[in-house]
Amino acid sequence: MTTSDPGQRRAPIEIAPEDFRKAGYRVVDQLAAFLETLPQRPVTTGESPKEIKNLLGSKSLPEEGVALGSLLDDTIDLLVNHSLFNGHPRFWGYITSAAAPIGAFGDFIAAMVNPNVGAWLISPVASEIEAQTVRWTAEILGYPAGCGGLLVSGGNVANFVGFMAARNSKATRNIRKEGLAQGNGNRLTMYCSAETHTWIVKAVDQYGLGTDSIRWIRTDDKLRIDVAALREQIVNDKAAGYIPFLVVGTAGSTGIGLIDPLPVLAELCREFDLWFHVDAAYGGFAACLPDAPADLLGLREADSVVIDPHKWLYSPLEAGVALVRDPDNLRSAFSHTPPSYYKFDQNLEENPINYYDLGPQNSRGFRALKVWLAYQQVGREGYVRMISDDVQLARRLFDLAKEHPALEAFTQNLSITTFRYVPEDLEQGIEQVESYLNLLNTELLTRLQRGGEVFLSNALVRDTYLLRVCIVNFRTSLADIEALPNIVVRVGKQVDEDIRPDALR
Amino acid sequence: MTTSDPGQRRAPIEIAPEDFRKAGYRVVDQLAAFLETLPQRPVTTGESPKEIKNLLGSKSLPEEGVALGSLLDDTIDLLVNHSLFNGHPRFWGYITSAAAPIGAFGDFIAAMVNPNVGAWLISPVASEIEAQTVRWTAEILGYPAGCGGLLVSGGNVANFVGFMAARNSKATRNIRKEGLAQGNGNRLTMYCSAETHTWIVKAVDQYGLGTDSIRWIRTDDKLRIDVAALREQIVNDKAAGYIPFLVVGTAGSTGIGLIDPLPVLAELCREFDLWFHVDAAYGGFAACLPDAPADLLGLREADSVVIDPHKWLYSPLEAGVALVRDPDNLRSAFSHTPPSYYKFDQNLEENPINYYDLGPQNSRGFRALKVWLAYQQVGREGYVRMISDDVQLARRLFDLAKEHPALEAFTQNLSITTFRYVPEDLEQGIEQVESYLNLLNTELLTRLQRGGEVFLSNALVRDTYLLRVCIVNFRTSLADIEALPNIVVRVGKQVDEDIRPDALR
Repeated sequence: MTTSDPGQRRAPIEIAPEDFRKAGYRVVDQLAAFLETLPQRPVTTGESPKEIKNLLGSKSLPEEGVALGSLLDDTIDLLVNHSLFNGHPRFWGYITSAAAPIGAFGDFIAAMVNPNVGAWLISPVASEIEAQTVRWTAEILGYPAGCGGLLVSGGNVANFVGFMAARNSKATRNIRKEGLAQGNGNRLTMYCSAETHTWIVKAVDQYGLGTDSIRWIRTDDKLRIDVAALREQIVNDKAAGYIPFLVVGTAGSTGIGLIDPLPVLAELCREFDLWFHVDAAYGGFAACLPDAPADLLGLREADSVVIDPHKWLYSPLEAGVALVRDPDNLRSAFSHTPPSYYKFDQNLEENPINYYDLGPQNSRGFRALKVWLAYQQVGREGYVRMISDDVQLARRLFDLAKEHPALEAFTQNLSITTFRYVPEDLEQGIEQVESYLNLLNTELLTRLQRGGEVFLSNALVRDTYLLRVCIVNFRTSLADIEALPNIVVRVGKQVDEDIRPDALR
Repeated sequence: MTTSDPGQRRAPIEIAPEDFRKAGYRVVDQLAAFLETLPQRPVTTGESPKEIKNLLGSKSLPEEGVALGSLLDDTIDLLVNHSLFNGHPRFWGYITSAAAPIGAFGDFIAAMVNPNVGAWLISPVASEIEAQTVRWTAEILGYPAGCGGLLVSGGNVANFVGFMAARNSKATRNIRKEGLAQGNGNRLTMYCSAETHTWIVKAVDQYGLGTDSIRWIRTDDKLRIDVAALREQIVNDKAAGYIPFLVVGTAGSTGIGLIDPLPVLAELCREFDLWFHVDAAYGGFAACLPDAPADLLGLREADSVVIDPHKWLYSPLEAGVALVRDPDNLRSAFSHTPPSYYKFDQNLEENPINYYDLGPQNSRGFRALKVWLAYQQVGREGYVRMISDDVQLARRLFDLAKEHPALEAFTQNLSITTFRYVPEDLEQGIEQVESYLNLLNTELLTRLQRGGEVFLSNALVRDTYLLRVCIVNFRTSLADIEALPNIVVRVGKQVDEDIRPDALR
C-alpha cells in the first residue's frame, strides 16, 4: 500500500476468507488426528533441553514471511511430537487437567472475535458472558451468586485478588496512598499452614508485607491446619500489638489434596473479625458432589474463594476464578480514578460491568468463553459425574496400592492418591531403609516420567517421598488405573536392582 | 462409568475425533463467513447493557448438557451479532489491535495441546518456543537478545514485572522478608510524568509503596516528561533522605502517543544509579522502522521494557511481553524456594527455563505460540511494512483534518492522530466557545461510537477534548481514512444543531 492507493489494504498478515477456510480445515484435520492418536502416544518423549533446543535452532527473527500452510503444518508436527500431554489418559502429574476440546473451540472463537473484556463498551456481550460464568461458578460451589468475581490467569493471580481484597478491606490506614511503611504495614499478620500453596510467599513479597508477616501454623496428624495453635497465635499476636487480618484455608492442597477444617476456620474468623480466604483452586469443584466433605462446604462461608476451571473443570489453560463475597470489597480493592481517555460509560444509562475495575489487568482476553461453553455442554450433571468418577478412580488406586505386596498406600483425598514402592524384602521403619526408600522412589519417579508410559509426580509427607497420582482427567479409565501398579512395580524393580546399596542387599 | 467397567471412559465433555472434525469444519466455516462479512457489519451495535443482558437471560447453571453443534452455532451467532469488533477496518478506538487470524489458529492449537508453560518438564517445546519468542521480540526492538523476559497477559502485568525487578534490585533492605514497613519502604520514590498509563497507580498500590511514593513530574509543551524538573526532584528527594529507585519513561502514551526523551532519561538514570523502565506497550514496535524517532530508540538502554504484541503486532488478546536487561534481575525478583513437589529438574542435565520462576504465575498458558507464528508468517519485513502503513495513514488523517475547514488537527505521534470538530462559524479561543466545543465533541464521540459506522475514542490535552484515532489495524485502508472527515463533520453538524446553546447561535 502507498498513500496514493485508496483501495483495499493488502496486509501480509491478513488471511482471505477462502484461505482461512482451507487452512482451518487442515488445522482441524490435524487436531482431530491428534485426538485420535493421543492414547497411543507416549505421555512425554523425555527429550533433553538440548535436544528440544536443537529442534528450534538459534535462528534470529526471520526477515521474510513463509507460506501459511507449511508454517501451520510444521508447527502442529513440532508440538504433537515433542510435548508432554496433560490430556493423555495416563497423565496424572501435578494438577493440570486434561483440556476439553470445546474449550479449544472457545479459545479459537474468542481470538477471532477478540473482544477486549476490560471494559463493557468494547466487549458488550463478552462482559455479560463473563458475569454469567462467574455466577455459574459460584452456583456450582454453593457460594452466593451475588458475589463479585472475575476470570484471571489461574490460581496464583486469583489468590492475589483475594489477598488484595483482604488487605484493602482490613487495613487500618490508607495503604493505597501511604503504602505499608507508615507504621501499619509491619503490624499486619496473616495465618496459614505450611501446606499452603506457594502463592502466599509470592503474595507477601509482591504486596510488600514480607514473609515475616506470615504465621505458619502447625498442622495436625492429617496435615490440616491446627486450629488450637491458630487461635493461640492470633491471641498472642493481638496482645503483642500486631494486626491479624487474614486467615487462609486450603481446599485441596497441591501435595496430598487435604482440606482444612473450613467451617471451624470460618467461625474463628468471624470471632476475631478476620478476612477468611479459601484457596480451593483444585478442590473447590468437589463441592458439587452429593457426598462432598463437610469440611469442604465451609468454603461457602469464606470472604473470598479461588477456584481454577483449568484444574477440575477440564478447561484449557488459562482459567482461574476469584470470587469475593461482597462485590464492593472487590471493586474497592482495584478501582482507581480512571484516566481521561476512559470514557466508557458516558453514553450508557445503566452501570455496566467494567472488569478493569475489578482486577490487576486493564486489557483482558475472553477467557470466560471456554468455561461458559463447557458449563453448557455438560451441565452440572455432567460435572458431578466426571468429578465423581475422578474421585472413584483415585480411591480405586488407593485400594489397589493397599492390596499390592510391593506398594504402600499413604493418602487418599479428593482425586489425589499417594503411595510408594517398597521392595518386599525390605523392612520399613528402619532409618537406613527409609532413607533408601526415599532415594529409590525418587529415582523411580524420574524413570517413570522419562519413560512416557505414565506420568506421576511426587509428594513429600513428613519426610517420606511418595509417588502421587492426581486425577483431574476425563480421559482416564479404570483400565488405565488398574494398569498402574504393575508398571510402577516393574520399573521399581529395575531401579532397585540398579541402585540398592550393598548394605541393604 | 462405574468402577466395574474397565473399558474406555465415556466422559460427557469428550468429543470423539470424527465429531471434532465435523464441529471444527463448521466453526471454521462460520468464522470464515465472519471474516468475509466483517467490513459490512457495524463496528458495534450500540445496544444497551439491558438489551445485552436480556440476550443471555438470568438463567442458572444448566442442569443438563446440550448438543454440541447448536451450542457452537448459537454462540458464534451471539458473538458476531452483538460484539464490538476491534478487527473492523474502521475501528480506531483505544489501543486494541485488529487480531491476526493466524493468532487465532495459534490459540486454537495451544488449547488443544495445552502445555502448561510454567515448568520446562511439562512443556518442553512450548517453553523453548516462548524463549525464542522473547528473543525475537528483543530483536525487533533492537534490545539485547540475551535479556530475560516472558509473556504475560498484557501491559499492566508486564509493567508490574518491570516494577518488581526494579524494587527488588534497588531495595536497600530485604523487602521480601521484612516487607516495606521497616523504615525503607516509606523512603522509596519513583518518577514519571502525568502522561504515564494508570498501571503505575495499580502498581504502587498493590506493591505497598502507596501513591505518595510517586513523584509526578511536570511535562513540557509536547507533554513529554520535563527532564530538568525530574533532575531537580531527584536531587531534592535525595537531600531529604528519600531513596529514589525508579524512573518510568513512556514510549507511545495511551493519550496522544507521545514518546518521552528516552536517551536523556537513560543517561540520567545511569548518573543517579536508578532503574530505568520503559513502558513501550504500544509504541515500542515502531523501533523497527527505518525512520524510527531517536527518542524511541532510547528504549534499548532501559533496564526493563514492556511491549504488547496484542497492541501493535496484531496479536489476539492476551499477549504482553516484559523484557529485563539482566536475566538475573528478573529471576531474583520472582524466584522463591520451590515447594517439595516441584521436582522438575532432577532428571535434566542442563538448566532448563522454568517460567514460574520469572513471573507472578505458576501455571501458565501458551500465549507465545500466536506471537511466534505471526513473526514467521510475515517476518520482520512484513511488520515494518504494516506498522509503517499504520503510521502513514495516521499522518494522512492529520493532513486531511488540517485541510478541512470544519476540523482542527491537534497532534500526530506514531499512529495516533487527534483532532476536533469546530463549526465554521465559531471562533476558537474564546472561553465560552472552547467550553462548548468540549461539550460538542464529547457528544459527537458518543454518537459516533453508538452509530457503528466508525469507532474512535478521545484524548484530553490541556483541557481540550479531542477525537482520537489510533490505527493499530492492518485492515484499515486509505479509503477508510479518507472517508472519516466527512463522517465526523456530517454527524458533528447534527449534534451542533441539536445542542448549541442560544447564546452561541
